[in-house]
Amino acid sequence: MGDARKGETLIDPWGSGEVRIDEKLMKEFGLKRFDAGGIESTHRFLTRNIIVAQRDFEAVKERIIQKKPFIQMTGIASSGPLHIGHKVDVDAYLLLRELGATSRFGVCDIDGYISRPDSKVGSMKEAKKHSADMVAHLLALGVPKDDIYVQSRKDPRYYEFVLELSKKITENAFRAIYGHVDPGKLCANLLQYADILHLQLEEYFGPMPSITGIGVEQDPHARACRDMAKRLPYGLYAPSFFYFTHQRGLQEGSKMSASEP
Amino acid sequence: MGDARKGETLIDPWGSGEVRIDEKLMKEFGLKRFDAGGIESTHRFLTRNIIVAQRDFEAVKERIIQKKPFIQMTGIASSGPLHIGHKVDVDAYLLLRELGATSRFGVCDIDGYISRPDSKVGSMKEAKKHSADMVAHLLALGVPKDDIYVQSRKDPRYYEFVLELSKKITENAFRAIYGHVDPGKLCANLLQYADILHLQLEEYFGPMPSITGIGVEQDPHARACRDMAKRLPYGLYAPSFFYFTHQRGLQEGSKMSASEP
Repeated sequence: MGDARKGETLIDPWGSGEVRIDEKLMKEFGLKRFDAGGIESTHRFLTRNIIVAQRDFEAVKERIIQKKPFIQMTGIASSGPLHIGHKVDVDAYLLLRELGATSRFGVCDIDGYISRPDSKVGSMKEAKKHSADMVAHLLALGVPKDDIYVQSRKDPRYYEFVLELSKKITENAFRAIYGHVDPGKLCANLLQYADILHLQLEEYFGPMPSITGIGVEQDPHARACRDMAKRLPYGLYAPSFFYFTHQRGLQEGSKMSASEP
Repeated sequence: MGDARKGETLIDPWGSGEVRIDEKLMKEFGLKRFDAGGIESTHRFLTRNIIVAQRDFEAVKERIIQKKPFIQMTGIASSGPLHIGHKVDVDAYLLLRELGATSRFGVCDIDGYISRPDSKVGSMKEAKKHSADMVAHLLALGVPKDDIYVQSRKDPRYYEFVLELSKKITENAFRAIYGHVDPGKLCANLLQYADILHLQLEEYFGPMPSITGIGVEQDPHARACRDMAKRLPYGLYAPSFFYFTHQRGLQEGSKMSASEP
């Protein structure tokens, strides 16, 4: 749980409690209402109340309208089989792909292992087994093969970047955001920042606006990731985010989770 | 500086103060006097007072005497050019190689960057430049080309292992050893543990006794690394260490450092 200031809504990026996105929360976090006006599409995601909020979506929207290149990156931790809640992430991914995004879908097996207790993911071997299942499911849902990468099968520049990011956040800054400096969760966060940012490196597609869809409970990550982009010597754009209203999980009061069967 | 218990000698693995290895320190840390008796060699390293202490060297000594396989791993952070103090590390490395060790020499550029302030190593680009120089110097000193690896040019299993290790130490344990949980230095430590341990994984040479020479001020790392070996599901041997009396640096009271020109 982050060290929220008095009166600030507590958001725990590691918790599974549902967070309702309302006007109060949006104002407090500096989020804006999601508005797809100007984009030529009648997709239900753009006209219905599924994506409700955004941070700096304007930068990407402009690229979509002007048909200029932009990046989208989506990731799912492989801590169990794909569940029906993931269908929304995949549909949003495919829509942005149609709208012109250079797109990558990360299957996050290292992150899935190191951020979760052994009772949920007991070993890297288990996390990799989940990732193989997840890749199969993503292919079945229509994500193109060349878009998908698995964290444990990347190139050296990616991993170097993950570790490089550790120098761009201090112990105090990390604790202020997350309320702890647990080594496993810290490294999981570095992987997540790298997943979102690395596609803008020269070795991949180069700097350009990027978009990632997350649950609003992940907003502290999003803000930390944007700060980090600005502190790196690579001229990266601060990544944009949009926020899903996640479907309620089967356990009362919890969001759906790949690590809860 | 670690949270040393009352009366315990303070050893700071990140400091550059010289630590004298005396009987008191050895007793306190559970180190043993280095004794090469039984090994057929008259090399000055084994007969003179250059290597003075060890932790679990017996396991490796037995392998040397019985001509059975064992691993040695040595690493140098690439934070500047090789200096004359490194010559001792290289000579010890070549000796253990002659004595039958399956040997790897790591040039630690990621570690060199993330563990040091920007005033010493300003970017990964700079660290990589240092690593290229260091490889050239190591070759000139007689380290075989195939022994040398650079941290930023390894295979995915290595990096996965670095990150996997983050789950095997808690925030409190880390703070008790090092006195802080600085993200950059934490990740540098994970790289160092991985450098020493990864050669015992099935994907490399498999589990067997291993030896690494370090300065005695690095002993807190050594102990943490041995603990970690036991907590992993790979049947690793706790690595053995020997301790150099490091040459005094040019600055009074400091050891030689690759990041101080």
